[in-house]
This record gives sequence, C-alpha cells and structure tokens, in this order.
Amino acid sequence: MRRSSHFASLSQHYLFPEIDQRKHLFLGENPHAKVISLGIGDTTHPLPKEVAEGISKSALAMSHRDGYVGYGPSLGLQHLREAIAHKVYGDRFSFDEITISDGTKPDLARFALLTGGKQKVAIQDPAYPVYLETSQIIGQEILLLPATAENNFFPDWTSLKGPHILFLCYPNNPTGVSASREQLQNIVDHAKNEGMLILFDAAYASYITDPAIPRSIFELEGAKECAIEWGSFSKSAGFSGIRLGWCLIPKELTYSTGESILSDWKRLISTTFNGASYLSQAAGLEALSSPSYHKIIEDYLENAHLLKQALAEKNIATFGGIHAPFLWADFSPLSSWEAFDHLLSKHHLLTTPGSGFGQAGEGYLRLSALGTRPDILEAIHRLKSLKI
Amino acid sequence: MRRSSHFASLSQHYLFPEIDQRKHLFLGENPHAKVISLGIGDTTHPLPKEVAEGISKSALAMSHRDGYVGYGPSLGLQHLREAIAHKVYGDRFSFDEITISDGTKPDLARFALLTGGKQKVAIQDPAYPVYLETSQIIGQEILLLPATAENNFFPDWTSLKGPHILFLCYPNNPTGVSASREQLQNIVDHAKNEGMLILFDAAYASYITDPAIPRSIFELEGAKECAIEWGSFSKSAGFSGIRLGWCLIPKELTYSTGESILSDWKRLISTTFNGASYLSQAAGLEALSSPSYHKIIEDYLENAHLLKQALAEKNIATFGGIHAPFLWADFSPLSSWEAFDHLLSKHHLLTTPGSGFGQAGEGYLRLSALGTRPDILEAIHRLKSLKI
Repeated sequence: MRRSSHFASLSQHYLFPEIDQRKHLFLGENPHAKVISLGIGDTTHPLPKEVAEGISKSALAMSHRDGYVGYGPSLGLQHLREAIAHKVYGDRFSFDEITISDGTKPDLARFALLTGGKQKVAIQDPAYPVYLETSQIIGQEILLLPATAENNFFPDWTSLKGPHILFLCYPNNPTGVSASREQLQNIVDHAKNEGMLILFDAAYASYITDPAIPRSIFELEGAKECAIEWGSFSKSAGFSGIRLGWCLIPKELTYSTGESILSDWKRLISTTFNGASYLSQAAGLEALSSPSYHKIIEDYLENAHLLKQALAEKNIATFGGIHAPFLWADFSPLSSWEAFDHLLSKHHLLTTPGSGFGQAGEGYLRLSALGTRPDILEAIHRLKSLKI
Repeated sequence: MRRSSHFASLSQHYLFPEIDQRKHLFLGENPHAKVISLGIGDTTHPLPKEVAEGISKSALAMSHRDGYVGYGPSLGLQHLREAIAHKVYGDRFSFDEITISDGTKPDLARFALLTGGKQKVAIQDPAYPVYLETSQIIGQEILLLPATAENNFFPDWTSLKGPHILFLCYPNNPTGVSASREQLQNIVDHAKNEGMLILFDAAYASYITDPAIPRSIFELEGAKECAIEWGSFSKSAGFSGIRLGWCLIPKELTYSTGESILSDWKRLISTTFNGASYLSQAAGLEALSSPSYHKIIEDYLENAHLLKQALAEKNIATFGGIHAPFLWADFSPLSSWEAFDHLLSKHHLLTTPGSGFGQAGEGYLRLSALGTRPDILEAIHRLKSLKI
C-alpha cells in the first residue's frame, strides 16, 4: 500500500499523547510527586446513582431472552433520538434529524468521509485539534483564523468570502469564551449569503448559565439552512468514557447542488457505523432524565471561578471559565511548553499547552476545571507560590 | 458544500435498510404474520450471566469516586489488548500491535481514511457490502472477483498482479464457506511477492471447529509482512449491540515506501476515535474469561446443520454453514429478490438476498443460523411446504 500524502502531512504527535509522555517522564524522575491534572478536559464526578443503576439494569436484562439486544439501528435508538429532540431542542426538530454517535470526534471523521475532501475549510486558531486533523486527513484546503485577545477570541468570520465549511465551537474549547447571540447571528447571516456550511460543536452548551447566550446554533434565525450541530454527553453527563453524542442535521439543509445532506449523512452512517453501544445509549436515556446533573455542572463552574480568582491574584490574565469548564491563561512571555514544564516541575500541576491548539495559542495554557474540588483547592494552594 | 463525487457513486439503498423496508411493508399488509428472521446476521442468545453481572458491576462502580472512569486510551484498555494477545493469539503478538474498536465496520471506515483513496482494491463478489462501500466512499479503484459454485466460492486471487489491497473474509460472509490452510498460504505467498496488503476479516473465526482450518491469517507463514486482521466480539460473544472488536497490525508491516503502518494507524486512531465505550471494554474482558460461549457457538452451528438438512430435503443446494453461522442457498433460476419475496410472503421467513452482496450472488439467499432454536425449528417446519 502507498502511504497517503494527506496522512503524511499530519504533524508527528497528537497533543494529548505528547502531554502524557512528558507526564510519565516527569513521574519516572519524581516517583513520589502528587501530580494534579488541570490538563486533558476529563470529567471526574462519579455518575449519579440513578444513571449507574439504570445501566446496570439494562446490562443484567441482557442475560435474559427478552432483555437481550443485538444490532440496534445504525442511526441510534429512536427513544433516545426522540428524548434529545424533546429535552434538548424543545421539539423544534424531529427525531429523524438527529443521529446518535459515540462522540463528536469519531462523528467528525465520518463527516470528513462525507465531504470527500478538496473543500475549503476555515478553522479558528486555536481550536480542538480534531477539526484541523480530520480536515487534513481527507485533504481539505484549510484556512486558519487567529483568535487572540485583540479580537476577544472571536475571529472576523465575515472576512471570508464564498463557500467554506466553518468549524465553530461556542462555548469554546480551548479558550472557554462564549459567543453572544449577535455574534452568532452575524455568522449565520453571512454563511447563508455566501453559501457556507457551519459545523457547530455544542459540547459545552450545558455550561451556559446566562439565558441570553445561545446554547444551540439553531437558536439563530436561518441556521437550519446553513448549519449542522454536534452535541455530546461527555462533559454534560460525565460520559467521556461511556462515549455518546449526537449530530443534528436539519432536513432543510442542502448541498450547493440541492440534494439533502441529511439523506446522504444517514446513508453514510449506515455504511460506516453500527450505532453507539446499546449500553451507552441506555445510559444516555437515564442521563436525560436524571435531576443530578445541574448540581454537578454548578460544581465544575465553581471550580473554574476559584481557579480564575487564584490566577488573578498572581496577575495572570485569564479568559473564559464563566460559561465553560475551561480557562485560557496568558503566561506570555513564556512559551506554552515552557509554562507547561514550569507548572509541572515546580508545582506538579498538569495543564495543556495553548500552542497545541494552534500557533495563535502560543503563550497560553488551557486549564480544565473538571477536577474534583479537593484537587482544585490543592492546585490553588500550590499556585499561591507561583513565581514566573 | 459540494457533494462528494465518490459519495454520489454509491447505490441508493444499503442492503439491510432495504430488507427492513420490505419487511415493514409486508407486516403492514399482514399485521398478524409471525415473521421469523433468517436475515440480518444478528445474535439472539442472551449474554452469559457472568458477563452481564460483570458489566453491571463496572457500571455501578462508576457512581463512586474510585470506580468512575473518564476518557480511556484511544487505542483501548491495555488489559483488554493484553487479554486478546494472550487468549486469541497465544502471545504471538504484543498488546501494542492490537487496537480496540467499536466493531469492524467503523474500523474499516477509519482504515479507508488511512489509505487516502486512489489505491487498487480487490474484493470478492459476493462480499459484506462494507468492503465495497467504504472503498467507494474514499475513491478507491475497485476490482471485483466473482466467487461462484464453479470456483468453490474462492476466486483465483493469484490472477491479480502488482500492489492491491485485498479484502479477505474466511469463514466467509455471506457464503459461509471456509478456506483451507493451503488456499490461504497461496494467497499470502502471492501477496508478499506482489507487494499486496491483505485485510483479513476474521469475524467468524470462533465458528471453526476443525483445527486444520486457520482461525487467523497470522497462522500462515509470512502473513506478518503483508496482512492486517480484524476480530470481533459480535458473533463470538453476542456483542452485536454492545459494539466491540479489534484490529491487529503487525509491527513488521510497512508501506511500499518502508514506513510502519502500525505507527500511522495508532496516530489515526488517536485523531479520529476516542476508544470503544468503557462499558463495552469491561464487557469484553468478562467475555474473554467466560466459559459459556463454547456451548452457545455449538448451538448456533447445530442450527446451521439443521437448516442445511432441511434445504437438502427440498433439493436446494447449500454451501457453507459448517464452520460459519451462515448458509448460502441456491434458489436459481429465481432471482434473489424473487426468492426473498417468495419466502417472506408464502412462508413468513425473512432472509437476505444474495444479490445484495454483489452481482455474483444473484440467485442465492443467505440464511443466518443465529436465531433461537425454537425459531429455527419453526422455520424448518415451514420449509417442508416450500414449492418453487
């Protein structure tokens, strides 16, 4: 087999494995260090009891003839699709416009297959590396738009002209900033005018506490004709290991030549996916009716608030962390990896180098507030002696 | 967004949704018919008690701080990779050469992304539609090799010259036939000589009862330098709904230009996948130590034997069904869809049209023996009145 030239264009290391490697190197040399992770955005709060018991019940039922479940529909269990249409979107969409996935990352790789490559793609810099890398793997023509303190981490998307695929993520990973209704409406209007397609990653929607901030791109007028949205149970329900998410493609959405994108997407899912695990989908149904998540998300947001205060006291400017579980902390003139190494070696704190999300992230660290409260308090304690 | 020309080249309907549609149409007109499925190859035997209880335990543990699990490694839990290396491959491979997936179908779509398209691909006709369709979606150059009664459903792979990617599946889906050691050794030798890559689908390996028949392509000499193997828990452990499988890429395997394929594969998995559900992986670990599966597979093979006998009595020639849970039944001169409609409307039996697996499958039906024993016996009873 020949090696794919698209694949060969990827940089050698993926961000998180690289962080993992540096952590293991450090722990090898300092076996007794108690490293606290503010790094990879992983949830730590246990599952609500009722959710765990619901999964257990579904699993035990599978050892009986009438509870056993084989292949489910590739597009997902209809009950779950209906529950998402109802509870997340207030029945403004039909279940038929929602497909269930094992997470946004694998679904974006499937979407890359749908595009076939050679499309113009615009991505914020910094961004979740998967947008760039799945686009590179399929051979898209990629444009990066720097998001910096100067533009309030909101690039001027309207400077783009003509058909593009735009990756948008608000509340944003990694910067943690949210976008206002007006900002998003401007993009939607522009996308419609220019024949652009918005791929909206709403993974952090449940962290929005201000009702004035849109939780879905589909709260904006006209979005049904120019946008696709991915939702996730990872950060909203602690399912990062259970793997569950969804994709919403409005039936109105078409290619530039008029064919339905939803129809092709369903065909693609049938061909390249056999549905998310039945156990994960059963878990998702439980999570959607669990009353416990409100409190869990409040806890994580309080973590973010405490971290933000602690850094302010050390005169480190931070962005985000209000409607998102991430803070974007400015450690310049240090480089991101310098700041990363400093916090790891001196304070035993694991963070994520901003430069790993793109060149414009240089000098920043992403701090995750998804740790446990005792860990966050200990991290804050350690930050008191920070000297840089 | 422009529509991908590769995607547009797919035929309108995927086989199984089409079957589903005809079934629903029939049931709409005959609401009281008790249709028995010999169609989609789905398992029906409940999970062994110890497996279900193991999953339940893992799920309940996730409601406690110390049992909660967030993101796992994208490549899979090391314990599970080690258990597969040990129990399936007798430690002839390192865990590091095995990656865990949510099934062969999604993993083949990821493999398509790795190839980048424009590769020469050879596929048996008939075959599991996913080989053809994932190849079409990424834009491969496809050659179909007819497998017919004349060549004992084993095409002359050695007639191909020069680098190709070969999809091989033995025991075969849909024909149910197995390949001898000599047949497979010939292909491996030829692949090495010509610089070909074999993608070996071993989904039905656990149905092989004759120790002379290889259960893995890696039982053949030289395969490490020219083959990749996919394994599955779907049919061996009843996990078609739980979603779990693996891919084995030997560290010796390289592109024609010398780079390691395993190394690129791991990079691709990190970028396009977040690991199979933790719950599914916990289930897989239980299944690998469960003593109950031997008996379950024997039951399914006995189903196949009974079906084969029943069709022989009606002078319908069948192939396969000895080391596989599928029978390939020759209903010519009827077309596959004619035979399908006849069995559905007259005998209320759901089957899979052979032509759905490729043109060379015309005139055949694939019958699955993965039903319950009472259903199989009732199907056999109904077949006694078959007149075609």
